[in-house]
Amino acid sequence: MEMRDIILDKRYGKRLSEEQIQFFVRGVTDKSIPDYQISALLMAIVLNGMDSSEMTDLTLMMARSGQTLDLSALSQRIVDKHSTGGVGDKCTPIVLPLVASFGIPVVKLSGRGLGFTGGTIDKLESIEGFRTEIPFSRFSEYVARCGAVLSAQTPELAPADKELYSLRDVTGTVESIPLIASSIMSKKIAGGADAIVLDVTCGDGAFMRDIDRARELSQAMIDIGRIAGKPVTCVITSMRQPLGHCVGNILEMHEVEEFFLGKAAEDLNTVCLTLAASMIRMSDILTTEDLSEIIDQIQRKIDSGEARKAFVSFIHSQGGQTSIDGSLIFKDKPMVRFEINAERDGYIREVLASDIGKASVLLGAGRKVKSDIIDPGAGLILRKKIGDYVRTGDCLCSLYTGEHADPGSASLNEAVGLAQKAYVIGSDEQAHPDEVIDILY
Amino acid sequence: MEMRDIILDKRYGKRLSEEQIQFFVRGVTDKSIPDYQISALLMAIVLNGMDSSEMTDLTLMMARSGQTLDLSALSQRIVDKHSTGGVGDKCTPIVLPLVASFGIPVVKLSGRGLGFTGGTIDKLESIEGFRTEIPFSRFSEYVARCGAVLSAQTPELAPADKELYSLRDVTGTVESIPLIASSIMSKKIAGGADAIVLDVTCGDGAFMRDIDRARELSQAMIDIGRIAGKPVTCVITSMRQPLGHCVGNILEMHEVEEFFLGKAAEDLNTVCLTLAASMIRMSDILTTEDLSEIIDQIQRKIDSGEARKAFVSFIHSQGGQTSIDGSLIFKDKPMVRFEINAERDGYIREVLASDIGKASVLLGAGRKVKSDIIDPGAGLILRKKIGDYVRTGDCLCSLYTGEHADPGSASLNEAVGLAQKAYVIGSDEQAHPDEVIDILY
Repeated sequence: MEMRDIILDKRYGKRLSEEQIQFFVRGVTDKSIPDYQISALLMAIVLNGMDSSEMTDLTLMMARSGQTLDLSALSQRIVDKHSTGGVGDKCTPIVLPLVASFGIPVVKLSGRGLGFTGGTIDKLESIEGFRTEIPFSRFSEYVARCGAVLSAQTPELAPADKELYSLRDVTGTVESIPLIASSIMSKKIAGGADAIVLDVTCGDGAFMRDIDRARELSQAMIDIGRIAGKPVTCVITSMRQPLGHCVGNILEMHEVEEFFLGKAAEDLNTVCLTLAASMIRMSDILTTEDLSEIIDQIQRKIDSGEARKAFVSFIHSQGGQTSIDGSLIFKDKPMVRFEINAERDGYIREVLASDIGKASVLLGAGRKVKSDIIDPGAGLILRKKIGDYVRTGDCLCSLYTGEHADPGSASLNEAVGLAQKAYVIGSDEQAHPDEVIDILY
Repeated sequence: MEMRDIILDKRYGKRLSEEQIQFFVRGVTDKSIPDYQISALLMAIVLNGMDSSEMTDLTLMMARSGQTLDLSALSQRIVDKHSTGGVGDKCTPIVLPLVASFGIPVVKLSGRGLGFTGGTIDKLESIEGFRTEIPFSRFSEYVARCGAVLSAQTPELAPADKELYSLRDVTGTVESIPLIASSIMSKKIAGGADAIVLDVTCGDGAFMRDIDRARELSQAMIDIGRIAGKPVTCVITSMRQPLGHCVGNILEMHEVEEFFLGKAAEDLNTVCLTLAASMIRMSDILTTEDLSEIIDQIQRKIDSGEARKAFVSFIHSQGGQTSIDGSLIFKDKPMVRFEINAERDGYIREVLASDIGKASVLLGAGRKVKSDIIDPGAGLILRKKIGDYVRTGDCLCSLYTGEHADPGSASLNEAVGLAQKAYVIGSDEQAHPDEVIDILY
């Protein structure tokens, strides 16, 4: 078999066989195929597509290209959760304890943030003492303790996907349904998932800018899951504006605490409850098929404080420190550095997630390149969101950096400019957008 | 400017600007752009195309990526000739002396053969003493002597094209109208051509399999020529069967000698006279606009022996040896090793050029890889061509190797198989195909 023939087949729009995809993924993993041939095939896939069966082959080969997690010892169906990325997305540390509180084991591998979408690992690491490098061999022990474990992804997991991703990043081949779908699914399958709930974000601050593309990606992942025998539920959520009120690591974890005290923003609440309910519905411990019924059950656990107990127990299990009352102890203290005020009366028409995300990176909450060091205290609190009515002079949002960061840096000015640009105010009344756009499975 | 953005623009089907193409070609030439980004862009160009103005920019940038030939000292319009490649294509050593015999200077840079299409340089090197490495600085001297000079292409000419070609070869991006058109045109323009006649071959043994693709390629090169101010004439010729009767280096040069003695195969005669007349029509020394009139003028020079004199003078000018009667002295002697006979009565329906070409390579007439050494005596003589009537037992073609080659090698058997496969005999009468399909300018 020759790589050139595989490229030619895809160039001329043919289906790649299982053997061809296996040859390709093996060659990527052991580096026997040169980068220039890999990138030529990637571009041909981007422009000529792949059908569900090709995507599934690619997914499974990539999943098997390195270490795979065997969670059969837990002798329960493992339901994993993944988001395609968003600004202010702090759902994972909320959803995990919620699901675990139902006695459903949760094992989650998460990434660090790069670009303007934050990473769950960075958020949890803003808590004093929280450990994110849990060895696979100790996962069962952690799950036995508090029902959930969360660890940073290791390079041993789906290394072919890692290789491909780094090449896609520099060859204009990132945005591609077959490549995104197989990349996500390969990591979930290698991570031991039996069933997967995917939060497919859609809008200004997401990979998928419009609902049609989000549906297309969802369908691709559902198809892969069906063929691979790993059922998938896709919750399409809006990323037209950031989720919740806080963006930035400590700020977001504080918002997570507020959630468990029953004080969450409505959009964050809706998304988290829908995701958690979808996971519970896919588990062994099914209470009912009716999603809204499961959501009610979750709500009762929040109201009773049972959910907060599960959250604090999860934080403690991984070494995270809290005060005696269970409130998190953070590594730094966010300090307000600038407030943006409304320059006119009116209704908030947009809070552009991409601009807010970029502003948070400039403040120090995220990384432009992998080697950047994060300021856990940096970020923004959005005081107003789409649909809110404001009067001239009202505070729209506040910009934060950590206590020890240089508050007079040039990046602050740039961040202020972006945050100002993010807010669009109009005269007409504006509805609060639906956070959950669709659920597909 | 970033290469990734250039790739993304082409990926999304946008026009590349002159600056983007310049950035790309410079980066290819000085190797500052990594191969994997180059190949991703090549695949995007293959699948999303380029318009005439992008192709012209690419052509001119590649032409200027290295040394360029300045032939203004000849103070005449230089008309160059190029073929997209064929089996049995020995037109260059015929057409050059024909045109030179009209007092039109001809300067030609040719390549070596790779794959099943032969190279003019290999053919001429089969003549004892013939020099093909003529320094640019001495071109005028050679032209003054006999009106024509032919030299091997140097790597200093359009190095960006050379880099791109070697990458295209291994990334399934060879067949692409914009890439083929700009590659051909860049070398012709770097070689100092003011006007260009292109023999665009079409059919089984050619790059362009069908007439529509051949027209498309022709139009692309005509458009580039128009924008670049270098007029182009495209002669679309059939490569359904090999051109003339001989395939292989010495065999073909012998057929060239026969041409000048007025004993050429009709198809070879038609193609060569059309190409030569098209070149003469584009020159300064225009006698008439009427192509058939020019063809008559050429025919008269062949009949009078003037054309043969120009040919022998060209051979002598570059050191080639001849007997006292002007016949060529070759480096080896072709020996018949096998004859293929008709297994039934009927009309020859096909003599598949690609199979004959591959058979000639197996016999030693061509190279599979660049480092292969050629046997100048190897090749085939086609005794019958499409439309001929044959009886069982008639000789269809003879297979040759050089005197010193091992006649019992395994490759001979394989070559015989291919030559047998190339001949298709049917019961129905079959017309002799038109050799010149169309002329576009």
